[in-house]
Amino acid sequence: MKIAVLGTGMVGEAIGTKLIETGHSVMMGSRTANNEKAAAFVAKHGKDKASAGTFAGAAAFGEIIFNCTKGIESINVLKSAGEKNLSNKILIDVSNPLDFSNGMPPTLAVCNSDSMAEEIQRAFPALKVVKSLNTMWCGIMVNPAMINGGDHNVFISGNDSDAKKQVAGILTGFGWTDKAIIDLGDLKTARGSEMLLPMWLSIMGTKNSGAFNFKVVS
Amino acid sequence: MKIAVLGTGMVGEAIGTKLIETGHSVMMGSRTANNEKAAAFVAKHGKDKASAGTFAGAAAFGEIIFNCTKGIESINVLKSAGEKNLSNKILIDVSNPLDFSNGMPPTLAVCNSDSMAEEIQRAFPALKVVKSLNTMWCGIMVNPAMINGGDHNVFISGNDSDAKKQVAGILTGFGWTDKAIIDLGDLKTARGSEMLLPMWLSIMGTKNSGAFNFKVVS
Repeated sequence: MKIAVLGTGMVGEAIGTKLIETGHSVMMGSRTANNEKAAAFVAKHGKDKASAGTFAGAAAFGEIIFNCTKGIESINVLKSAGEKNLSNKILIDVSNPLDFSNGMPPTLAVCNSDSMAEEIQRAFPALKVVKSLNTMWCGIMVNPAMINGGDHNVFISGNDSDAKKQVAGILTGFGWTDKAIIDLGDLKTARGSEMLLPMWLSIMGTKNSGAFNFKVVS
Repeated sequence: MKIAVLGTGMVGEAIGTKLIETGHSVMMGSRTANNEKAAAFVAKHGKDKASAGTFAGAAAFGEIIFNCTKGIESINVLKSAGEKNLSNKILIDVSNPLDFSNGMPPTLAVCNSDSMAEEIQRAFPALKVVKSLNTMWCGIMVNPAMINGGDHNVFISGNDSDAKKQVAGILTGFGWTDKAIIDLGDLKTARGSEMLLPMWLSIMGTKNSGAFNFKVVS
């Protein structure tokens, strides 16, 4: 598939690389078409599978769009991507609305009675927003077998069942087993996965490593 | 030890019972000294180990105090318990500030840049507040072996190291192994464990059961 990855940070790089390794074509989108990290990504993976463009160019290219930008910037990024380039497409929202402006620990710019994912969905009603992968370090997102033999969980939230099935398919490509994927329900449940971040950050602090994840046991 | 359990709901009943089973004396505190559930608790466990009283009576009795009241009522409960009865004691705060007044899903009455545990600590500076056990169903709190052979996690947050050690000792009595107990850090980290509730509620909805818990794997 043709997939857009918005954002050239660690998360975009990890997800873009895994998508190419699993047979997809990726356009990495950033504020400017000549972003250095995006150019390095294209040089590394080759021009037949990898390309770089603006947020709008990448969104136009992608049949599916990964939002790997910072949560607090995501609405503006998507505005610059252009509504017509997003229409009827699946947006996999990996972002978290972390706000570091008041020091450590960061707070969430939106939470409790709302979420980043719901904000995006309201701003772009023709998008099919699916929240996923935002509850872990990017190394684990694309290589779940790195810890505990892959036996831990990734969550999905969204209002469109077919979109969630397609996202589950992509997660399977990343190495997640069916039983590892927990469909929490509609997009309101993204509040829960985004509000997991303060706990994640505390545990990261105790371990001095992001190489961990949550497993629901019963 | 002499332990006060504030609150006569499912959580207070489960914790009070386990404390008695593990050799402690428990006074269950409620708004009135003649609460029916507290009376049933005393009748069940016998007057040599169990007693009932007002919040103030229980707090005066306890060397350690469990807050098993609803989060949104906890400050008022502790006010009626009386500052002098709380002074220099450990309060194990099991509460969550769930607010159902705006319908489902509930929101948190406090979160993000603050927590219920921190509110209590600010209101009663002479208390040693330790947040714990609030991230799971009460059946699991006192019987971790019920699921996954006891191999899952309970979190502790608090500003007083000695108080956290004592709480860890009580958790050990409840059946938690040393490696299952994760000290997240100071009381600010209670934000994370309280903000886990929306995720907990979503998972409970998918399972139709509270008999699950989170395990951190790495």
